[in-house]
Amino acid sequence: MPNPTAAMLVIGDEILSGRTHDKNTHYLAGKLTEAAIDLVEARVVSDDKDAIVAAVRELSGKVDHVFTSGGIGPTHDDITADCMAAAFGQSIDVRDDARAILQAHYDSQGQDLNEARLRMARIPDGATLIDNPVSKAPGFTIENVHVMAGVPRVFHAMVATVLAGLSGGQPLLSETWRVEMGEGDIAGPLGELVTAHPDVSFGSYPYQQHGVYGSNIVVRSQDNAALAGAYAALQSVFPA
Amino acid sequence: MPNPTAAMLVIGDEILSGRTHDKNTHYLAGKLTEAAIDLVEARVVSDDKDAIVAAVRELSGKVDHVFTSGGIGPTHDDITADCMAAAFGQSIDVRDDARAILQAHYDSQGQDLNEARLRMARIPDGATLIDNPVSKAPGFTIENVHVMAGVPRVFHAMVATVLAGLSGGQPLLSETWRVEMGEGDIAGPLGELVTAHPDVSFGSYPYQQHGVYGSNIVVRSQDNAALAGAYAALQSVFPA
Repeated sequence: MPNPTAAMLVIGDEILSGRTHDKNTHYLAGKLTEAAIDLVEARVVSDDKDAIVAAVRELSGKVDHVFTSGGIGPTHDDITADCMAAAFGQSIDVRDDARAILQAHYDSQGQDLNEARLRMARIPDGATLIDNPVSKAPGFTIENVHVMAGVPRVFHAMVATVLAGLSGGQPLLSETWRVEMGEGDIAGPLGELVTAHPDVSFGSYPYQQHGVYGSNIVVRSQDNAALAGAYAALQSVFPA
Repeated sequence: MPNPTAAMLVIGDEILSGRTHDKNTHYLAGKLTEAAIDLVEARVVSDDKDAIVAAVRELSGKVDHVFTSGGIGPTHDDITADCMAAAFGQSIDVRDDARAILQAHYDSQGQDLNEARLRMARIPDGATLIDNPVSKAPGFTIENVHVMAGVPRVFHAMVATVLAGLSGGQPLLSETWRVEMGEGDIAGPLGELVTAHPDVSFGSYPYQQHGVYGSNIVVRSQDNAALAGAYAALQSVFPA
């Protein structure tokens, strides 16, 4: 059975202007690989309602799970929750369950749950909350879309919660073999290995280190025996 | 006049599996901001022909310039050039101008221009070559799509070449003001500033450092006077 598929949607002008370097996609990619869920696409869009709504609708229809990061804070440019409601035709307002979480948090800090902070309790109807153990303001799941914070520590915690509830497919196994030859010399023999081992995927990732060209050849398969056979053949074609 | 728009398309399974961290999007984002070209979307797709062709067609029709990285090396998984030809209905084969560049390079290195390396001279009809001062194998521009290498040093060099030939709009000016208050306390007064300064965009980028919550408030505008007015108001609302 093929693995479930996923897409990542990063929301934020600050990524597209180059001000902030998105590290959440890379983090999620690694976690999904461990969970045997195939990340098939990632996108970054700006804090623009039309762009967010169009992207989430398209990705939601294309893959099993969409993960989003960014735009769920208290400031005027945090419009993700309202966009998700619009994308799925749901109404949205401050929700009692989310308000209770924030009220308890700010009470314990001796801080005021003011109008701006209350924006973080705006949750679309029908959505399920995602726990935020770091700073409390929850994310949420609506249809097949998991809406999470952009702050990396919070994003990581929310990903852990969401992945615990999803079932992946058969984990993808991999082996890496380092070949100290340029890709141009590797490509011919590698092409023959690719043809001879149809149940295994081969990737070639070139590097240059201390003036020496080389490549890490990665073999991947869900079938352990097929992987072992291909890896042995790779080592014999490119001896250490 | 609005700035020209751009999109980034990163091509490669290794990004989506979490093996490699894409840094080219962040690099391009910074360079486009300097050049007054608005990056409005970024995508990562796998080494899959249908996915690449669909994404490049959609982005090409949506923005003024598309920049791609990855998939133009000599190995079997480098299919970007063929996908670009397919996306624009052009034929593709080894082209004499690209072959001459590679031949001179490998001759000078005493290396063989073998069949695998010759794949890097496959250039769609009608495309213009992009110089590669680092490792010679050229990129190319087809329609409004600039097809570049994934290796960061080569990508950087190609971006410099391409941007030198494009004209941007009015540069976006910005100022940043650091406020040592949580976003929940900032959001109310900030919302009033947003309303009072319609020609300026405000972004709030929270941080937590040594246990203290704060936010960098960035004001951006193409209009220097409007920016100065908004920045002064920001400083007076949130004194240091």
